[in-house]
Amino acid sequence: MSHHPEVPDDHYRPTYEDIHQHIASTARQIRATFRPDLIVAIGGGGFFPARVLRTFLKRNVGGDKLVNVPIQAIGLSLYEDLASDETNTSGPTAKGKIGLEVVRTQWLDAPKREGDDALTGGLLGKNILIVDEVDDSRTTLQYAYNELVSDVRKSLEALSPEQRAKVGPTRFAIFVVHNKLRNKKGTLPIVWSNHATVAPQPNETQAPAKLGPGEELVEKRNDGNGKVVEGLWYFAAETTGDIWVEYPWEQEDIEEHNRIAAVAKKLGVNTGAVESSS
Amino acid sequence: MSHHPEVPDDHYRPTYEDIHQHIASTARQIRATFRPDLIVAIGGGGFFPARVLRTFLKRNVGGDKLVNVPIQAIGLSLYEDLASDETNTSGPTAKGKIGLEVVRTQWLDAPKREGDDALTGGLLGKNILIVDEVDDSRTTLQYAYNELVSDVRKSLEALSPEQRAKVGPTRFAIFVVHNKLRNKKGTLPIVWSNHATVAPQPNETQAPAKLGPGEELVEKRNDGNGKVVEGLWYFAAETTGDIWVEYPWEQEDIEEHNRIAAVAKKLGVNTGAVESSS
Repeated sequence: MSHHPEVPDDHYRPTYEDIHQHIASTARQIRATFRPDLIVAIGGGGFFPARVLRTFLKRNVGGDKLVNVPIQAIGLSLYEDLASDETNTSGPTAKGKIGLEVVRTQWLDAPKREGDDALTGGLLGKNILIVDEVDDSRTTLQYAYNELVSDVRKSLEALSPEQRAKVGPTRFAIFVVHNKLRNKKGTLPIVWSNHATVAPQPNETQAPAKLGPGEELVEKRNDGNGKVVEGLWYFAAETTGDIWVEYPWEQEDIEEHNRIAAVAKKLGVNTGAVESSS
Repeated sequence: MSHHPEVPDDHYRPTYEDIHQHIASTARQIRATFRPDLIVAIGGGGFFPARVLRTFLKRNVGGDKLVNVPIQAIGLSLYEDLASDETNTSGPTAKGKIGLEVVRTQWLDAPKREGDDALTGGLLGKNILIVDEVDDSRTTLQYAYNELVSDVRKSLEALSPEQRAKVGPTRFAIFVVHNKLRNKKGTLPIVWSNHATVAPQPNETQAPAKLGPGEELVEKRNDGNGKVVEGLWYFAAETTGDIWVEYPWEQEDIEEHNRIAAVAKKLGVNTGAVESSS
């Protein structure tokens, strides 16, 4: 691909500060609509966004008291990535990795608790936000969502009708720093997104909608009915073309990364975003 | 405490770029000496340093092939922190939290594997690097180290003598972005550190040593003897006084954070580090 002579390639280079601010903007939307009780971070890419999100998603529990939203980590790898140095598995320079088997390297570990939700480590009746750095082929996110839903369903089935009646609905949302507009291999039942487009050839089960003024994604919390709410809310900090994103945490030379990022910004090239949350 | 009139307080404000570079410098020392097979990140503070460390700790597995060091996450909280908005539990403005109970919110989840190390999720025979953002009261780190050692010992006891003979020694090291020179509540059996001082009144079982030229921390790997190597290696990216550290991932206004950081750097105040790794 051609690129401006003052930058080495056509990669998009957000700085730490760029990503921090994009997350902050999106967190305002999340707080106003989905209100997560639990963050599930897909490691290692989801670790940084999850940690920054936590700063902006503190929950008010009455008075001036703010509490952190807990983070649980899960580890997922496309099978061949386990023996590879590639963490950014898309873009024009990385091909042929789509559709490989997803393997768990770590899963949720239920804290030892009393009560009805002990079986799922506390997933039941929660608003759960799944966090990763990039929605690329969508394979990893599809796997994570399907497995978490499956865990919740199994746990609900293990409850008596009386126990189930005490459990509020369990809802899922996804947050990614970047959603790449490209053909997606994986599918997600996205019913709402903070951006107008989530894939160039949507294969979601329903077209995503945007909220009207005053509307909220999440109805009252005390409607105990022990179900998984069908459909997924989708938050991206930025929607990009099918480009290579250079994440700051992957850079061996962060000064050079920031230097090129500043040059590209000044020139208005390799800006990455088709649509941003702010 | 008094501080320079051009900065709002005496807090130390490293930027993302500062921390990235401090981690890079320390990673060179780690790669040359301890060579981790597994990173155990203590969430949420350990998430960012673990992810950046992984960039600099890729292992050469022959030829030009580099592989990522896997990251497993564990969740630990001082008991009262679960309902608190404080993540930085030290410094002159936060007192009385030392020695509270540590509780697990997540622990290692063994991947389903065949073989002798299935019981520990692959801890046996590995060089394990425990990662957190700050060594403050040392309570959390003591808990994490003791529990991991206990897991390894239990798994070794469950093996037959023949199986044990096939397992190489298991070693532990700690990496923190900042070690604060203050009275430590927790203790660690530190036998080696990349800095001259790890606590102002050392209560470690042995005084830490530095390596001579050409020496290595880790002997040959194929010395199967199924033991936990006594003693802990300790890497800090920076050693600081007993100051309040403002981490960039905790900032609601990252631009203002960086602005104050630049002013403080120019004035040479609130610089934080007593000793750094570079």
